[in-house]
Amino acid sequence: MAQLPEKATHQQTRAFNLQLVLKAIYDHDRISRADIARLTGLTRATVSELVMDLLNQGLILEVGLGQSTGGKTPTLLSLAADSKHLIAIDLANDAFIGAIVDLRGAQCHRISRPLENRSGSHALKLIYTLIDELLDLTDRPLLGISIGTPGLVDTEEGIVLRSVHLGWDNLPLGQLLEERYNLPVYIANDSQVAALAQYIFGEEPKSPNLVAIKLGQGIGSGIVINGVLFQGEGFGAGEIGHVTIIENGQQCRCGNFGCLETVATEHAMLLTAEELAPNYPGSILSEQLLNQEKITSIGLFEAYRSGDELASLVANRAAFYLGLAIANLVGVLNLHNIWLIGDITHFGEAWLEEIRNSMKQNALPVLAEQTQVNISALNQDVVILGTSALLITRELGLDLAR
Amino acid sequence: MAQLPEKATHQQTRAFNLQLVLKAIYDHDRISRADIARLTGLTRATVSELVMDLLNQGLILEVGLGQSTGGKTPTLLSLAADSKHLIAIDLANDAFIGAIVDLRGAQCHRISRPLENRSGSHALKLIYTLIDELLDLTDRPLLGISIGTPGLVDTEEGIVLRSVHLGWDNLPLGQLLEERYNLPVYIANDSQVAALAQYIFGEEPKSPNLVAIKLGQGIGSGIVINGVLFQGEGFGAGEIGHVTIIENGQQCRCGNFGCLETVATEHAMLLTAEELAPNYPGSILSEQLLNQEKITSIGLFEAYRSGDELASLVANRAAFYLGLAIANLVGVLNLHNIWLIGDITHFGEAWLEEIRNSMKQNALPVLAEQTQVNISALNQDVVILGTSALLITRELGLDLAR
Repeated sequence: MAQLPEKATHQQTRAFNLQLVLKAIYDHDRISRADIARLTGLTRATVSELVMDLLNQGLILEVGLGQSTGGKTPTLLSLAADSKHLIAIDLANDAFIGAIVDLRGAQCHRISRPLENRSGSHALKLIYTLIDELLDLTDRPLLGISIGTPGLVDTEEGIVLRSVHLGWDNLPLGQLLEERYNLPVYIANDSQVAALAQYIFGEEPKSPNLVAIKLGQGIGSGIVINGVLFQGEGFGAGEIGHVTIIENGQQCRCGNFGCLETVATEHAMLLTAEELAPNYPGSILSEQLLNQEKITSIGLFEAYRSGDELASLVANRAAFYLGLAIANLVGVLNLHNIWLIGDITHFGEAWLEEIRNSMKQNALPVLAEQTQVNISALNQDVVILGTSALLITRELGLDLAR
Repeated sequence: MAQLPEKATHQQTRAFNLQLVLKAIYDHDRISRADIARLTGLTRATVSELVMDLLNQGLILEVGLGQSTGGKTPTLLSLAADSKHLIAIDLANDAFIGAIVDLRGAQCHRISRPLENRSGSHALKLIYTLIDELLDLTDRPLLGISIGTPGLVDTEEGIVLRSVHLGWDNLPLGQLLEERYNLPVYIANDSQVAALAQYIFGEEPKSPNLVAIKLGQGIGSGIVINGVLFQGEGFGAGEIGHVTIIENGQQCRCGNFGCLETVATEHAMLLTAEELAPNYPGSILSEQLLNQEKITSIGLFEAYRSGDELASLVANRAAFYLGLAIANLVGVLNLHNIWLIGDITHFGEAWLEEIRNSMKQNALPVLAEQTQVNISALNQDVVILGTSALLITRELGLDLAR
């Protein structure tokens, strides 16, 4: 039998309506009670009562007078963004980055500690050190701690199911941190929170439905449906980096062959360039190799910008397979907004156009036509923003579609 | 700004709870008021009042006495499956099939009319004829009309956006039928309703999250998340038949190259067998071709069952690419139950094992391990069942997760 959802009670109705009001205020710089009533469909009296509750909690402020539309001049309300802080942490590949963040995702403080090949309990201790330092940097009430990490994460239980990079298997990180700091703790996959960052803090076009593809040392994506992170049944939704994209391709670190990661990361691009260099003797990259210089990301990028044939071939090959992976997303999800996030997007508009063309070539035309693929303005802070979005939406109840 | 969901009112709360009660009854052969209260979390008094409402509507019946657990012997309730009928139609490739169906999806009457290459308004007229005939076969109140069709369908507006096979572009089929018959009308893609059929009427393991892949003259899938059909933003979610699966593959009817449909339908398998036959002179299939006989689906299947090398190669090639397409689904959605539906599944357990192995080889191991791929017991009636499920869940409000 399918599981029944919980009954709706009057208390839940009130809590839901309180979140509706808070979300209306969160979504606007400043807004009047009348506009909240219009937006939410609640009565003026109900809105006034719920606003009073939020004012008493200190979560919102009265910030001045708006324009009268005939009657009394309305008082405008705004989120008290600095009323509470949160601790957001990005377990990036080379360093752990921590920040004190306000309710609008603005970073008040930020520190970074190099990982230096720590793993297991040593990596865990580095998180403790980071949080201890961050706690000294704020005197505001804390909403909680939120962490984005590579690997598979059970967000409901706060367990890192598997992180090869950090050597963690079924680590109950959430419980450990909750016991140590007595605060709510959220943990999620870094690509998944990147999608939340795009939804809450990203640029136009805004949409409650989107896929964000995080292109870093690995490739993963996050899926937001109706304003809520979709994680699948095993928290692995969006794991597109390890689906076979090239039959009989190169072996991937996951053990399979021809995964997207074997061809569309910067690392993979550099390997391809080295491999093909002998066939392109005129290329800047081939000359670098002949001079015993290693090809770097920056070198590849500059060669691409100068029109170098080998660099173009390598970049466009990655673009083709990214487009094919996006075509898969289009066929399965049919969501209209797909965002690319990461350093590799510096290859720019012409490279993006190659990705779009590949998507069109590899997906059902009527669906490809509906789909916007764009480079996100979010980049190095996307995980910090995303973990903040996760904590803010869950703790303040702003992920209303759930 | 993200769109706000509608406010929750007390009336909505009551309607929601009424649906909870109806769903509890729908999900059980017979159930007591006490068990409904336990399942839904509603009070006994509330359940009794809502049950009275459903009894008055004629949707449920008191069907006898249950076991006492100490107190009063409870009266058992059951769905009055025959209290209302619905008209379910499958716009299959060769014939339009219509049925009178009860609230449990049982077919009371079924008729089939050959399509005989009709398209455009002629195909539309055939639907009218079919419905006119079906209306004469029942005297029950009708819940509505529900149609499953190949192609892209706007289920909310009842518009067939594109059906190449039937020559329809933006056909407002829902409106036409509502005006003609004065009944609620639902229209959806046939693969998508197949997933609903699996969810509502399929075998164990039951799950509110699943993907059903319909393998027929085309290939498509439907996705059910939290008991609700997920259609994407353009109603095209699950359109996996036209994602490129073979680089530089054969041209597909969609215009692109190397789509799943070019390799994993029975038609594609027959073409492959003909193409490869000269290389397999000992094959039963090659001998048939030499004798000027056409290779048929049944011939291919029998050759496969007898261990014929060419037939095995062709079937296992299709299985490999189906497994790769499923690996894509696993990577994007991470849903645990994937069902295969259609005649081609007669290739059986060994063939299914090839599909599973390919999925494992082409998806992230930790996610592939969680995923069950099975052949569904549903087959030729799946679209009739699926459209029935669509209408029943929407009209009776049983798709509670929405």
